Amino acid sequence: MTLPVTAQATAPQILARCRDLVRPAFTQAVQRLHPWPAEMAAFSLGWSNVGGRLVPGSHGKGVRQALTVLCAEAAGAPGEDAVVGAVAVELIHTFTLLHDDIMDGDETRRQRATVWKAYGTGPAVLAGDALFALAVETLANARTVHSGAAVRHLAGTLNDLVRGQAEDLLFESRPWTGPGAVRPDEYRSMAEHKTGALLGCAAGLGAVLAGAPTSTVNALAQAGRHLGVAFQVVDDLLGIWGDPQVTGKPVHSDLRRLKKTYPVLAALATDGPAAGRLAALLTSDHPLDDTAARRAAELIEDAGGRSATLTEAHHHIDSARDCLTSIPLAPTAVGEILTLLQFLVDRRM
Amino acid sequence: MTLPVTAQATAPQILARCRDLVRPAFTQAVQRLHPWPAEMAAFSLGWSNVGGRLVPGSHGKGVRQALTVLCAEAAGAPGEDAVVGAVAVELIHTFTLLHDDIMDGDETRRQRATVWKAYGTGPAVLAGDALFALAVETLANARTVHSGAAVRHLAGTLNDLVRGQAEDLLFESRPWTGPGAVRPDEYRSMAEHKTGALLGCAAGLGAVLAGAPTSTVNALAQAGRHLGVAFQVVDDLLGIWGDPQVTGKPVHSDLRRLKKTYPVLAALATDGPAAGRLAALLTSDHPLDDTAARRAAELIEDAGGRSATLTEAHHHIDSARDCLTSIPLAPTAVGEILTLLQFLVDRRM
Repeated sequence: MTLPVTAQATAPQILARCRDLVRPAFTQAVQRLHPWPAEMAAFSLGWSNVGGRLVPGSHGKGVRQALTVLCAEAAGAPGEDAVVGAVAVELIHTFTLLHDDIMDGDETRRQRATVWKAYGTGPAVLAGDALFALAVETLANARTVHSGAAVRHLAGTLNDLVRGQAEDLLFESRPWTGPGAVRPDEYRSMAEHKTGALLGCAAGLGAVLAGAPTSTVNALAQAGRHLGVAFQVVDDLLGIWGDPQVTGKPVHSDLRRLKKTYPVLAALATDGPAAGRLAALLTSDHPLDDTAARRAAELIEDAGGRSATLTEAHHHIDSARDCLTSIPLAPTAVGEILTLLQFLVDRRM
Repeated sequence: MTLPVTAQATAPQILARCRDLVRPAFTQAVQRLHPWPAEMAAFSLGWSNVGGRLVPGSHGKGVRQALTVLCAEAAGAPGEDAVVGAVAVELIHTFTLLHDDIMDGDETRRQRATVWKAYGTGPAVLAGDALFALAVETLANARTVHSGAAVRHLAGTLNDLVRGQAEDLLFESRPWTGPGAVRPDEYRSMAEHKTGALLGCAAGLGAVLAGAPTSTVNALAQAGRHLGVAFQVVDDLLGIWGDPQVTGKPVHSDLRRLKKTYPVLAALATDGPAAGRLAALLTSDHPLDDTAARRAAELIEDAGGRSATLTEAHHHIDSARDCLTSIPLAPTAVGEILTLLQFLVDRRM
């Protein structure tokens, strides 16, 4: 007897289906902006070049919009019901990238100039504000009885996002060692606010727009927050050990920039001999050259920073899975969310 | 026979009463921010110095919060019902000042350093975002059945604000004369979006939170928009002919900065001999010194730019008055709104 084969969608297929579902409303929303911020938004999204000429091809994975659609489906509604939330979440995500790049002084993103670098700081501030305003308006004017609840859900997220970015910026001026050093648990709190809040919002909004009960909204939002922290620490691993061909960033880029990421902070917190040598290297008062950055990466690994980060990522993925099994949900959608979880934590490693 | 004297409140008394009503909730809202953006917000509001030390004394007129309170009263509700809206409007106002000062490169405001000058551009972007997020959250979580309608009212405003700021920034790069020159009606449209939208929102929110019917909300919001445009063009007059002792800006400050304001654009649009001489002065390719700025002010007056601006201001004040008499409203509150209108258009002239 032959068992029937269930054709299970792959992560790229799931992401593509959600992008196709959300794209028309997303494009229409951006077109409602004043032409100038609209051009900057399209540039930031990879849709066009400076001057507004359209760029064909792929435009990012769209993890957040997919999570919103899949969580609505998991809560028993058609994905279409969540499109307005998916659009709002992508608008907020783009707004945070635009403003964070200004605050961090980052000149490139995804191998292109950042918006402030291409258009100037003032215009980039304006474009971010425009996207923020559009996200709020999109949800507030959504033609659904859940519009008010959706706005409240987003509003709670926004404050967490700002809090996370404030914490991240303040980390930069703190020392590597001693009582003022950034502890791994402080980093976790920052990541929960900054990356966790937006993915939690993406997931929760899907459930809210599906009209799900509070317990379902909370469980899905919590799963999203765990996914966000996992996503962040995997990013940190890629910033040190990622393949430059795949990440689009130079090798050891986060180390050269002396960025306080989880692997470094976890390594320093072990307080052993490798941590001591790492601290000496990081506090030597000049930027790390090729040799020093390679040495720092080795010391982080020796001190256990790399494995601690992997453990942290897996802990959050497991917690996200627990959230998804804690309540009754549509099994196909949950299967797709789990496929996505695995894909995101395994990406480019 | 002696007629009973009705003690009518003066504009400063009305403003003080509204400030006292709104202050506790406003202070509490700002304190809910992360301490860093909270300090920058307090600095921007004149509540504290860099470092967070409190500054005693007056903290701005609070025109917007007063308008929200008075419009709720005009619609028959106690002013208390509108406090949450007054707080949201002041938060949005502070957010726009913070970000506009970055975009315009302005280094001082009210004789103090601007936030980006005192704290850096990145932190000022963050503080603006934090205030924006807090305003949305304040309305979304307001304990009133009108919370959803209030958020929708604010959301419509936000897009207008961004549109107005985009138009204003783009004016800077346009020529003084020829087919690409900024026309007075384009300036009016910008002022309607930028200053009009926020005062319209302040007024409309008061009515929304009072549970007023749509016709009342629309009439009060329209009155607020007219007041906003009047306010803007009076500001333009003060930027050229205002007393530096009162405005806190150097004499002719807008002219020296070659800012495209209503009096200049109205003068140039007359196309007469004074307009021609003014155009020659403005396009001479070097910044205006004392003599040239004084000469430009004379030419604007000769070409009729000053009187056209006063006419414009009075037209909008009259229109605001017409809006207020077009619907049934509480007479005492309307009287106070009218007192405020007159005060704002007569200020410092």
